[in-house]
Amino acid sequence: MASKRVYNFSAGPSMLPLECLEKAGSEITNFNNTGMSVMEMSHRSKVFTSILQETKAGLKGLMKIPDNYEILFLQGGATLQFAMVPMNLMSRTGKADYAITGNFSGLAYNEARKYGTCNTAADTKDRNHTYIPAQQELITDKDASYFYYCANNTIYGTEWKYIPETGDVPIVCDMSSNILSCPVDISKYGIIFAGAQKNMSPAGLTVVIIRKDLPGRQFDYTPVMLNYEVMIKKDSMHNTPPCYNIYMLGLVVKWIEQKGGLEAMEQLKKERSSLLYDFLDNSGLFKCPVEPDSRSGMNVVFSTGDNELDTRFVSEAEKAGFFNLKGHRSVGGMRASIYNAMPVEGVKKLVEFMKDFELKNK
Amino acid sequence: MASKRVYNFSAGPSMLPLECLEKAGSEITNFNNTGMSVMEMSHRSKVFTSILQETKAGLKGLMKIPDNYEILFLQGGATLQFAMVPMNLMSRTGKADYAITGNFSGLAYNEARKYGTCNTAADTKDRNHTYIPAQQELITDKDASYFYYCANNTIYGTEWKYIPETGDVPIVCDMSSNILSCPVDISKYGIIFAGAQKNMSPAGLTVVIIRKDLPGRQFDYTPVMLNYEVMIKKDSMHNTPPCYNIYMLGLVVKWIEQKGGLEAMEQLKKERSSLLYDFLDNSGLFKCPVEPDSRSGMNVVFSTGDNELDTRFVSEAEKAGFFNLKGHRSVGGMRASIYNAMPVEGVKKLVEFMKDFELKNK
Repeated sequence: MASKRVYNFSAGPSMLPLECLEKAGSEITNFNNTGMSVMEMSHRSKVFTSILQETKAGLKGLMKIPDNYEILFLQGGATLQFAMVPMNLMSRTGKADYAITGNFSGLAYNEARKYGTCNTAADTKDRNHTYIPAQQELITDKDASYFYYCANNTIYGTEWKYIPETGDVPIVCDMSSNILSCPVDISKYGIIFAGAQKNMSPAGLTVVIIRKDLPGRQFDYTPVMLNYEVMIKKDSMHNTPPCYNIYMLGLVVKWIEQKGGLEAMEQLKKERSSLLYDFLDNSGLFKCPVEPDSRSGMNVVFSTGDNELDTRFVSEAEKAGFFNLKGHRSVGGMRASIYNAMPVEGVKKLVEFMKDFELKNK
Repeated sequence: MASKRVYNFSAGPSMLPLECLEKAGSEITNFNNTGMSVMEMSHRSKVFTSILQETKAGLKGLMKIPDNYEILFLQGGATLQFAMVPMNLMSRTGKADYAITGNFSGLAYNEARKYGTCNTAADTKDRNHTYIPAQQELITDKDASYFYYCANNTIYGTEWKYIPETGDVPIVCDMSSNILSCPVDISKYGIIFAGAQKNMSPAGLTVVIIRKDLPGRQFDYTPVMLNYEVMIKKDSMHNTPPCYNIYMLGLVVKWIEQKGGLEAMEQLKKERSSLLYDFLDNSGLFKCPVEPDSRSGMNVVFSTGDNELDTRFVSEAEKAGFFNLKGHRSVGGMRASIYNAMPVEGVKKLVEFMKDFELKNK
């Protein structure tokens, strides 16, 4: 049934571990001898409640999430968090700091301006978002309601290698594209959120990790579904949550545990990305525009500098079984997204293919 | 693999057609020879775009949706629509009419009061929501921004058998629990929305059918994800939609087409619900509290009038393979939710079981 599988370098939705898909497929009409699919279960049934609680417990263990944080399973993707964060936190002082290091932090900034004053703590568009600002370059305000940044910039291929120092100002971080790729000190954050469709689960689930003292300051007009306090109180069940995505996340969490946890994921991340960056730095044809110490371990951006050749590369790569290598339209060139589920083997084969392509096109 | 399946009378999430689950299972690691799961596809890829467009076209054909309406695939369930509707429409006149016929229309009313003046067009709590008000009982305001009602009350087992007459005031309708169960004259509505997890697809998808002239009046603070105008312009792809749920909906739409469309669904709805109501009206043990002309074809509420006996019934039914028959905590007793995917056979067997139970417990 499975037979042919391709190497899928999509930026998201992206590859899921084959073992998880196969497990899901094997029980799609009858989960654990219940006689029904997880898709068909009442979200308030004992069996689904235990799936949700196991998934939460698994994620808590994997990420070493302290007890004063809550894990929420929400909907609407990171883009809805762009509004939900200020609709709950902005009233603290009426202003917030935003570090803009790419497309999505820019969108978050634009959205947050509906709800208060947004200060630009950094903006890397001066060098086309090819770098992450250093701590001493950040302009922070000790009276900010929160400090906001995006940990990994999917489009530009950059990744923060440090957690900003903001004093007492809570940090809000969009980790959509690098969550679960390495251990993280959760205690440094106020809120971490992530759309699930890159490293966690199919699209339609947003995971939020929130320090329990932060909610309770929403505006009067904040919808009940965008009220963190309500969602904590109802344990993500104010209404029907995206049950099947939560179940799939549970399978992925178990898969990561079996592979050795986040330390193992970090090791694999280094292995995959080094294969590509080492090749790129020694290539006479391909270049990576990102400054070396800012390079993402999840999204590797590169090009030949020749649009026509780039297009040919993407097309020939696809014929050879390497899919979705076209770069985002705002950057051009190519992008290889290499999340947890991408086998090292897939990256090795891609590098071989790139070497061949280079030889033929020097 | 599938083997044992039970009759699942859950109010939602609820049964899906077995054929759709089996089809999904057969291609879960490799859709249509693409070498990837639908869960893994870029939402902007050609293959996923065609899944989305086919699902839209299928739904448009099935429901005979006129060209001046748009179909949106959103997230957050009906509960997020409770806010999204007023955040986009309330500014027309600052007030709206709400017919409260159960739990969810009450919640919608409470949410909408954050955004304007809500008038009670009807409130059926005087007789514990056991009836639907007649047209002449509705108190409507010709200056209302919109008129709101919930077409089927899952908890109380009532269903509107007519479309309210509201003059030029657009009608907004929550059809979460009876959408796709019969043909509907879409042209009478301004907005129809439905959480997918009852008659359409797994939880995590909200289908909105909206007349194209209605959006564009959102408040300044309306989040971009809750702006119908943006969602129409981006064809539900402002960010990553719940792709797998859209794919599952496409399978369900095809299944309904093959069964004979919404006329066939209506016929089956009558057949299933008549089996239960006819039995209940002649039973010496079980009673249905709902007034005959207001009874739902989707959720059949009943009880013995004795809590202890009700509990025993639910427990013995489960042992016999009839699941999730416990009524909602606010009503008590039992509830059999009999959506499109429930085979008539399942209802026949349930009635047989109820007859037996009655004989043993008179």
